[in-house]
Amino acid sequence: MLRTLVGELPDRIGQRVLLQGWVHRRRRLGAVAFLLVRDRSGVAQVVLGDGAVLDALPEETVIAVEGTVTAREQAPGGVELTSPQVTALSAPAATPPVQLWRPALDVGLPTVLDHAPVVWRHRTRQALWRIAASSVRGFRRVLDVRGFTEIHTPKLVGGATESGANVFTVDYFGRPAYLAQSPQLYKQIMVGVFERVYETGPVFRAEPHDTSRHLAEYVSLDVELGFIDDHRDVLAVLGEVLAGMLAEIAAEDVDLAGVRLPALPDSIPVVHFRDALRLVGADPAEPDLAPEHERLLGAWAQEQHRSDFLAVEGYPARKRPFYTHPEPGDPTATNSFDLLFRGQELVTGGQRLHEIADYERALAERGEPLATYAGYLDAFRHGMPPHGGFAIGLERWTAQLAQRDNIRQTTLFPRDRQRLTP
Amino acid sequence: MLRTLVGELPDRIGQRVLLQGWVHRRRRLGAVAFLLVRDRSGVAQVVLGDGAVLDALPEETVIAVEGTVTAREQAPGGVELTSPQVTALSAPAATPPVQLWRPALDVGLPTVLDHAPVVWRHRTRQALWRIAASSVRGFRRVLDVRGFTEIHTPKLVGGATESGANVFTVDYFGRPAYLAQSPQLYKQIMVGVFERVYETGPVFRAEPHDTSRHLAEYVSLDVELGFIDDHRDVLAVLGEVLAGMLAEIAAEDVDLAGVRLPALPDSIPVVHFRDALRLVGADPAEPDLAPEHERLLGAWAQEQHRSDFLAVEGYPARKRPFYTHPEPGDPTATNSFDLLFRGQELVTGGQRLHEIADYERALAERGEPLATYAGYLDAFRHGMPPHGGFAIGLERWTAQLAQRDNIRQTTLFPRDRQRLTP
Repeated sequence: MLRTLVGELPDRIGQRVLLQGWVHRRRRLGAVAFLLVRDRSGVAQVVLGDGAVLDALPEETVIAVEGTVTAREQAPGGVELTSPQVTALSAPAATPPVQLWRPALDVGLPTVLDHAPVVWRHRTRQALWRIAASSVRGFRRVLDVRGFTEIHTPKLVGGATESGANVFTVDYFGRPAYLAQSPQLYKQIMVGVFERVYETGPVFRAEPHDTSRHLAEYVSLDVELGFIDDHRDVLAVLGEVLAGMLAEIAAEDVDLAGVRLPALPDSIPVVHFRDALRLVGADPAEPDLAPEHERLLGAWAQEQHRSDFLAVEGYPARKRPFYTHPEPGDPTATNSFDLLFRGQELVTGGQRLHEIADYERALAERGEPLATYAGYLDAFRHGMPPHGGFAIGLERWTAQLAQRDNIRQTTLFPRDRQRLTP
Repeated sequence: MLRTLVGELPDRIGQRVLLQGWVHRRRRLGAVAFLLVRDRSGVAQVVLGDGAVLDALPEETVIAVEGTVTAREQAPGGVELTSPQVTALSAPAATPPVQLWRPALDVGLPTVLDHAPVVWRHRTRQALWRIAASSVRGFRRVLDVRGFTEIHTPKLVGGATESGANVFTVDYFGRPAYLAQSPQLYKQIMVGVFERVYETGPVFRAEPHDTSRHLAEYVSLDVELGFIDDHRDVLAVLGEVLAGMLAEIAAEDVDLAGVRLPALPDSIPVVHFRDALRLVGADPAEPDLAPEHERLLGAWAQEQHRSDFLAVEGYPARKRPFYTHPEPGDPTATNSFDLLFRGQELVTGGQRLHEIADYERALAERGEPLATYAGYLDAFRHGMPPHGGFAIGLERWTAQLAQRDNIRQTTLFPRDRQRLTP
């Protein structure tokens, strides 16, 4: 008999079907016993004449159940399985470290992380990751229809991507190599080939501090596009991408994970960095926004624009990487932006330099040897269009979307100073 | 004026349009001069009154051209731009290391690799990578509609994935970590969560030899699914995935890259390992197939089944990893397979063990400490369904598909013993 998924049961009333999944929960009520079976689509109730079979089927044991689909209003999904025949597909499972059948997962972060291989089975956790996976699908879908080409750039690199700090060193056949901190240089090079590119892949940062927002490895959703006027064109694509990410998320996962979907206006509101400082009453000489400033700006965007997103443009040049394009008319400012999501930085982006002479000058000013960037500079020597891009941290996106206060709650197997397993 | 792509010109005859792209080639024919402009969609011809402007626009300079779309049978795409106004968007480009305008790229591999940032602009090379990108899109599309969830598993791991050999060591905050050789253990764990998962990401092998088929870093397309009967169910999904990958590839790229598309039957032919040895006249005690055997089997599949693909199942257990499921009735053989594509191994897959007791025995037999696999074994202790999966090397897929004899020709920025840049 072909397998039926739990989610398909309402269409099979009166039929004999085969379910396969995990024992979600066993329940005895006087003379009747119930078995809840969980598969990737949901949980179904199985009615057993007596509960004798349950002793050999502890929670999380994998089973097959043949039974008759019977309408029953009070059961999950309005159906249950009657006259069942239950077969074990695995040996009886050990007792899980957390009670996976409880609607809420009420345990501390260390337990969640130590037992990740099992804890991710909790339905609210599954939903949280499906939201991440759907977001990535939406990201790609938007870019695919807009003529972007997906690239895969090397993670083993000969020099640090953007700065020597926070870089992991690899023993590469007896000499040092480094783990790419971002695909920045490669995605720019590939604009010279495909004009519009994206990459979804791991990046590595040897973060020396343990914070709730940083990891040693995370998934970066990177975009870069050519033939732009300035960073505002990049921001427009970012808005479309975020809309596409939200559109892919299933309503059922939103409910399960308890997510409040954000307000994303058709055009993301923009404020200049110097006006942002003024708005929050900060010293006009500040080179960056403090977390408290970002929170205030988030509240302001909500109030003034009914938007959970706010772009701050014109960041000071001294706080931005060498490839950042200056602001026309003010060389101390840049055509770059941060996107705040609910008052926290989510995305950094902007326009890049595209003339070889500008790169040579920018690197010389920072005292960086050109040789380190030889392949990168080659692209600019041979004609590059005005271009720009952005990067979204996937785990941060999911954490801010689902309002989880630690990025480790939305990372499958987080890596930090302390943690390298599971 | 909004930008028009070269590929859209045939629909704009008689209109004034704005093209943006690279100077592909300049040509002077007596009193008339031509400029070929390349963008991501193709190459267009621009007719210039005289060629004076060309001196300042060497090949690969980025330009904008406003002009009138005029039908002309002999021009590429049947149209050309007349009465043009040309503006440079970048400084004059340096002479490229290869002649990008020539239809064929007739240079040796070292030149291709040393100048990758520019050489990928060659139209045949662009097409080659677009074939790779389209294949990945097809891979995901097939799996998305079949209920698979995309995962991103850590590349920094505490222990070697499958064996201590060929693993890169990372200085991880003062202690050793390793680069994941595959997402094998994590994708199996995630079958316990989502039943069906896939991942497209980098894997790392410290390959000690320079061969035309191995790299230190490559993109692995990984699939794992639960609730299977045996490896034949895995093979069926593989067949659907390959069909989906081929279906996504654009005919134009096939032409540009000179690809001969393979014959993929609805059901991939299967031969048992022991019969395969017999077919090629090898010693029945051989534990593996030599390259020459694989070539002979490829020819046999072509002749007997009109198929460019052949699955060899039942590989000897001693040549397979500890997690491989044995063949029922013959513990020296396994429920695993290799997929040969045009007589070369492309995919390895099969059914895995799913009972904790079998894992404990398999690891003990190989003298491996259970502690190394603690998180992995946790998943099996708490109920795992019968499952299996496979992995396709993206660069190898593209190389075999496009019949390039070195995997470096289908890798954006290859990494090997010698090469860490560009």
